[in-house]
Amino acid sequence: MRFRPVDSAFYALFTEQAQHLVTGTALLAEMLAEASDKEDVATRMRAAEHDADETTHALIRRVNSTFVTPFDREDIYALASGLDDVMDEMDEVVDLILLYEVKVLPAELSQQVEVLQRCAELTAEWMPKLQAPQSLEEYWIEINRLENAGDKNHRRTLARLFSGEYKTIEVLKLKDIVESLEAAIDAFEKVANIIEQIAVKES
Amino acid sequence: MRFRPVDSAFYALFTEQAQHLVTGTALLAEMLAEASDKEDVATRMRAAEHDADETTHALIRRVNSTFVTPFDREDIYALASGLDDVMDEMDEVVDLILLYEVKVLPAELSQQVEVLQRCAELTAEWMPKLQAPQSLEEYWIEINRLENAGDKNHRRTLARLFSGEYKTIEVLKLKDIVESLEAAIDAFEKVANIIEQIAVKES
Amino acid sequence: MRFRPVDSAFYALFTEQAQHLVTGTALLAEMLAEASDKEDVATRMRAAEHDADETTHALIRRVNSTFVTPFDREDIYALASGLDDVMDEMDEVVDLILLYEVKVLPAELSQQVEVLQRCAELTAEWMPKLQAPQSLEEYWIEINRLENAGDKNHRRTLARLFSGEYKTIEVLKLKDIVESLEAAIDAFEKVANIIEQIAVKES
Repeated sequence: MRFRPVDSAFYALFTEQAQHLVTGTALLAEMLAEASDKEDVATRMRAAEHDADETTHALIRRVNSTFVTPFDREDIYALASGLDDVMDEMDEVVDLILLYEVKVLPAELSQQVEVLQRCAELTAEWMPKLQAPQSLEEYWIEINRLENAGDKNHRRTLARLFSGEYKTIEVLKLKDIVESLEAAIDAFEKVANIIEQIAVKES
Repeated sequence: MRFRPVDSAFYALFTEQAQHLVTGTALLAEMLAEASDKEDVATRMRAAEHDADETTHALIRRVNSTFVTPFDREDIYALASGLDDVMDEMDEVVDLILLYEVKVLPAELSQQVEVLQRCAELTAEWMPKLQAPQSLEEYWIEINRLENAGDKNHRRTLARLFSGEYKTIEVLKLKDIVESLEAAIDAFEKVANIIEQIAVKES
Repeated sequence: MRFRPVDSAFYALFTEQAQHLVTGTALLAEMLAEASDKEDVATRMRAAEHDADETTHALIRRVNSTFVTPFDREDIYALASGLDDVMDEMDEVVDLILLYEVKVLPAELSQQVEVLQRCAELTAEWMPKLQAPQSLEEYWIEINRLENAGDKNHRRTLARLFSGEYKTIEVLKLKDIVESLEAAIDAFEKVANIIEQIAVKES
């Protein structure tokens, strides 16, 4: 086991990034609710995305100004930008719903947002334990399980979009939204894979 | 010329990856045949993709547990995941054909699958010679030539899709399938480029 | 401040890459003009893209054959291929306009091309100063500002495409073109980010 410097700021910042994702998924769920004020939710999402960016930049500044980092510099970059990518994909979903003026969203989309909420909670829960990356095995296995469930749901949603129920122009809009949701879930899986790789290197 | 350790398991595993791609392209060709049982082909494709994953994981485990690797660790990762990406793209094609319930596919798609079959055969044929990466020049030139041919065919196919012959909803479905085929060919080119880079470093 | 070897060929080649992008954006503007001979513009774009490839390869050959490089080898690769990606995205725009036989393009597209022209000019103007990467702060801030403006315009364009003014098949075509323009602007932002990272490392 390698000696790990005690600079706990990195773990605090990764945890902060994960907490922004919990906020983001809550806003996504609100966006999908029929009665929500979509303009207002989108404004708050933009603010959340901005906060997440701040945390990411703080992490990158710290990695650039720290001589001995807890993990390889490139792994810290990869993890920080991996977490940031999740937020960007979720922001994109909210943005498209507003931009395309989609009124009624298929129920399958709520199931994808539930998967995303579970991913965000798990990430926020485990991130403080990153100091011992090997101990996160349960985390990356569970994220991979959630991604599989999300993928099955994604395929069901696509099949429904093309079932003849929707006008072609609506299919075009909804497909973009559905694919951004899928991309957000994939981005969580990528985060889990990065952590697994860090753990493998440390072992 | 650098001393190269004799651990031949890496070359055997890369060759195994390439052989999975030969299987994958054969299944793709079967999927496109009008009379095929698409559910059954898709099931076998899923199994082939799973087998390919196993080989990729075996390669990554080996790279992580080996002290002296035949090439830079990051190049082995890049090549292993490059080969894995080809399989994922081909799996996506099969998946979309089943999911979108496309009955008749334009003839241009078969030409793209022929390009893919030629790429897979070439890759399987040359991979055992990876121990002397510079000797693979003919391989990467030929893959680049095939990618150019595939690109021309891809553009012809897109022009046909938008010619007015197809209903818009069908264009939307076929465009996804056609783009996944193109992505699979591009993924082969990326593999060839990685090998060229390895050869350059070694020279 | 690190000692920097005097091999000025790298800076000359990066500047050459940027100049190809100035040519590319001029051709894009010509392609959008209603009266232009689109076949002819596309032929010249193909030639420009080919020239840009030559410069990229010259850069990569030089990095592979030079013992002491002005920046980390991987940063030179990243910057060279980042600049090359911009050209590829612009070539894609020209290609799609020809391929899809789009006759009338929404005015919003010209605004995106103006953003691209400004990005290319800035890049060509600043690239010769790359020897002192920290001095390029004004450059990367301005590119980020342009990318923000481009993003706002992109969203307005998408909203217009889906406003009901266009037939669905036209939306499908125009959306591809509009997204390639956006990808070209994003590719410029990526170049600016790479330069910022190089500056951070040097400081």
